[in-house]
Amino acid sequence: VSKGTYHHGDLRRAIVRSARKLIEERGPHDVSLRAIAKGAGVSSAAPYHHFDDRTAVIAAVATEGFRELTDRLGLAPTGLQDAGPLQRLQDAGIAYVCFANDNPGLFRLMFSGLLSERSRYPDLQEAAAAAFAMLGELVGENLARPPGEATDALVLTAWSTVHGLAVLLIEGRLDVRQTNEDAARLTREVTRVLGRGLRSYSRPGRDGG
Amino acid sequence: VSKGTYHHGDLRRAIVRSARKLIEERGPHDVSLRAIAKGAGVSSAAPYHHFDDRTAVIAAVATEGFRELTDRLGLAPTGLQDAGPLQRLQDAGIAYVCFANDNPGLFRLMFSGLLSERSRYPDLQEAAAAAFAMLGELVGENLARPPGEATDALVLTAWSTVHGLAVLLIEGRLDVRQTNEDAARLTREVTRVLGRGLRSYSRPGRDGG
Repeated sequence: VSKGTYHHGDLRRAIVRSARKLIEERGPHDVSLRAIAKGAGVSSAAPYHHFDDRTAVIAAVATEGFRELTDRLGLAPTGLQDAGPLQRLQDAGIAYVCFANDNPGLFRLMFSGLLSERSRYPDLQEAAAAAFAMLGELVGENLARPPGEATDALVLTAWSTVHGLAVLLIEGRLDVRQTNEDAARLTREVTRVLGRGLRSYSRPGRDGG
Repeated sequence: VSKGTYHHGDLRRAIVRSARKLIEERGPHDVSLRAIAKGAGVSSAAPYHHFDDRTAVIAAVATEGFRELTDRLGLAPTGLQDAGPLQRLQDAGIAYVCFANDNPGLFRLMFSGLLSERSRYPDLQEAAAAAFAMLGELVGENLARPPGEATDALVLTAWSTVHGLAVLLIEGRLDVRQTNEDAARLTREVTRVLGRGLRSYSRPGRDGG
């Protein structure tokens, strides 16, 4: 495929798709703009139609990742209107951990220090904030009434818990197969403990489960 | 310093120290055996007196990391015999997160997929297992009696929670300064929720903490 065959938006998408594939295969450190262009079947100069540099392409891949993560977190509860808050928290946790398991290279990139200068990439910043806001909603649902303590601490706990599990799983630190079935089983166990901790803040004396 | 000036054990230690310093500065991917030898002030052949290859040196650094982590986890509760179990869990959590914050490159290495063939390195395997066992003890202390559910799930929850927080902190994903003061504050908040979740398994109807 030569450069000329892409429409404007298609070229951008092809470059991001190629970069994502390479990041998944090799990790973000070993991906050059030349390799990205080659993977997309375009000239080495073509990426510059849409991106300032290599890091801008990688930021676009991470942005796509945060949008997909938000979608998957959002779908988990919406699909189960009659489920209790714990089940929705568990389903969202499973969505988070399975997203990491399905896209380990992308997930590592999204949370790496590589893109710590996020202010340079407003789309990325917005997409990451949207994922975090979605997580906050899910935690809020697990609180029958506003807790005495700052909700921020509860959201951070939930995020840390599913994030830690996701990282330990994809880096092969747990003695399980890295299948989504095992990921879901572990996430269900871990979010059950988490859910009890969260609810203890809003329903004193109760011990639901 | 020339090669001849090292005693046997000192040479090994000097090589591990040099590797650790380079891993902290550059990450494990960009550290060559040549650079490690140079940093230790020895010939490029000297590391082969003690190590088969570059990965074996890196495994020795990770082993040292797990031993230090275990020591720091163990010191946290021992120092406070009269503290309650929640405070010991919090102190150990703080030790875990601050260890990561003090040694981000080492911490990334210890939990990277880079050393997934741990069976090749029995010392590393043993050191990692000891750290995990220490975590299990700390979680056990937070359970007044054996829970109905598998304790494994509770240990995994605790590990995921502090590990997730450590990773999010060192990769700059939290809107805080990466100081040990901020790390301790966040860990205290997160382990408070965790502790409540853990205790709900062993003390039905109670809501301590």
